[in-house]
Amino acid sequence: MKKNRIINALGIDIGGTNIKFVIINNSGEIIDFLEIESKAEVGRKFILGNIITGIEKILSKNKKIKIEGVGVGTPGLVNEEGKVVTGASNLKGWNGTPIKKILEKKLNIPVYVDNDVTALALGEAYFGAGRGYKNVICLALGTGLGGGIIIDKKIYRGRFGYAGEFGHIVVNPNGPRCTCGKIGCLETYASSWGLKRMAIKFFENNKDSLIYKSVKNNLNEITPKIIFDAYSKNDKIAIEILNIMGNYLGMGIGILVNIFDPDVIIIAGGIAKAGKVLIDLIYKYIYKYTLNFFEGKVKLKISKFKNKAGAIGSASLFFERKRIF
Amino acid sequence: MKKNRIINALGIDIGGTNIKFVIINNSGEIIDFLEIESKAEVGRKFILGNIITGIEKILSKNKKIKIEGVGVGTPGLVNEEGKVVTGASNLKGWNGTPIKKILEKKLNIPVYVDNDVTALALGEAYFGAGRGYKNVICLALGTGLGGGIIIDKKIYRGRFGYAGEFGHIVVNPNGPRCTCGKIGCLETYASSWGLKRMAIKFFENNKDSLIYKSVKNNLNEITPKIIFDAYSKNDKIAIEILNIMGNYLGMGIGILVNIFDPDVIIIAGGIAKAGKVLIDLIYKYIYKYTLNFFEGKVKLKISKFKNKAGAIGSASLFFERKRIF
Repeated sequence: MKKNRIINALGIDIGGTNIKFVIINNSGEIIDFLEIESKAEVGRKFILGNIITGIEKILSKNKKIKIEGVGVGTPGLVNEEGKVVTGASNLKGWNGTPIKKILEKKLNIPVYVDNDVTALALGEAYFGAGRGYKNVICLALGTGLGGGIIIDKKIYRGRFGYAGEFGHIVVNPNGPRCTCGKIGCLETYASSWGLKRMAIKFFENNKDSLIYKSVKNNLNEITPKIIFDAYSKNDKIAIEILNIMGNYLGMGIGILVNIFDPDVIIIAGGIAKAGKVLIDLIYKYIYKYTLNFFEGKVKLKISKFKNKAGAIGSASLFFERKRIF
Repeated sequence: MKKNRIINALGIDIGGTNIKFVIINNSGEIIDFLEIESKAEVGRKFILGNIITGIEKILSKNKKIKIEGVGVGTPGLVNEEGKVVTGASNLKGWNGTPIKKILEKKLNIPVYVDNDVTALALGEAYFGAGRGYKNVICLALGTGLGGGIIIDKKIYRGRFGYAGEFGHIVVNPNGPRCTCGKIGCLETYASSWGLKRMAIKFFENNKDSLIYKSVKNNLNEITPKIIFDAYSKNDKIAIEILNIMGNYLGMGIGILVNIFDPDVIIIAGGIAKAGKVLIDLIYKYIYKYTLNFFEGKVKLKISKFKNKAGAIGSASLFFERKRIF
């Protein structure tokens, strides 16, 4: 890291609900943070308008700061020209958007674009729970389960840019069907929808669980938080569901440990709010699935930046491409 | 690759049965190859003596060739000082041998030492089935199942040097116990001992299989070749065993594809002699376990160098450390 000179970057994290903006420097100091609604269901033009509005807002508040580059994290697969190719299904009309080109034209500074979970992993590796480590594996447990691989402080993307699809590691070939169409992916157990799926499945024979009471049997309203809350109150069904999740997360992460022998594994995303409870559930099962050598050696950490992690990661894309680390 | 200058290296592949020596240059031309018995059961001094004998033999035959460096592939885990730390269980007394130090003292040129499967993966990536590719995954199906990861033309080793333990990816948590002590590792299905294990298990109710006839019911003499031969003659039990192997190899490699999105996957080791039959068995199952995106895109190849692969890989360790690629 070139410590001599302070370099500032703007990070933009585009999500289905919110767009987040951060100004951060190469020492990891957060200079400003801003969050606005994305209203992604309205369509591409609207999302782009909101991005521009947010940029103008945060830049005009920080006129004295020289921003040298921009990083953008977006759902979906991003190609080398910084265009969203596919997979941004929760942002209406977003696939095909040449976001790099649009923003470079607008801002006249370099813009780098990548997948949002990839960016998050990079930000945590540079400034967060992975700071100081070379090889970092990140799992983002949100609606689905995304992943990011940082090797030797750089993003590992693979041939088509699809590397790190940890949510689709098959952990149970006789398990439930995943949103991806295949059977028994890790995501069917370890994601918001996976947890809700299990809770709905258990409802039939266990209607007295706190989980169902707290949503007045409106099963569609079940969230990870409701399940973790019930777990903390020793609810039998919540304990069963979260142990199933813990077991399969232990298996998936155990597989990643045998493969990568990583410095640290970071758990991010909405479900990571459960913190130590989640980490303990993974530790309970992981060594069943690793070589004996690794027992007691695996470092699992919760992401440091919580709701800012995506934006900080996006800014880090600029630092990575400029080889500031 | 610095194409201007020819650089020659000596590669030494230390195995339980044989020690192999190769002289190869940075264009991938094999100048000489030599194979001698290791008699590894006698002990460390004897193995070292055989290594020195082999070196002297191949060097005296090639006096006009300037060797600039040496690479050594050995079973077990090798530390940064080029010492075998642990895991070389089929070479008597070999753990703890400071092989780099010993050979550098003897030869007065740089010596680099690494795990034999790691070296093999590197050699195939530089000169063999992975030539021209950046990100290469290698599975060596021998007595056990070893792995190697080449990222951006360099070996990926991980925190403790244990990266690439593909044989211990758990593919069936309700499966058989592995030699490593855990349950349902890929190696229990896709290795010489895994195949033999399955064949012995099926014996009870299927004594008329060609597999058992060809070893006259001496089950301990069952080899992968015998099973593949029976398979080619439509033997029912051989078909069943190899499809179980194919399915779990498809699952393990499918997991690796979702994680690495690699340029190519190379299958090496004794079982790879089965060639296209083996590749077809993996293709039959792999896409059950990858994202739809990968369907039709995964490149599986048999290692190019067969019995020379380990020695060529060992020589490649010198090219890697000197950043000749």
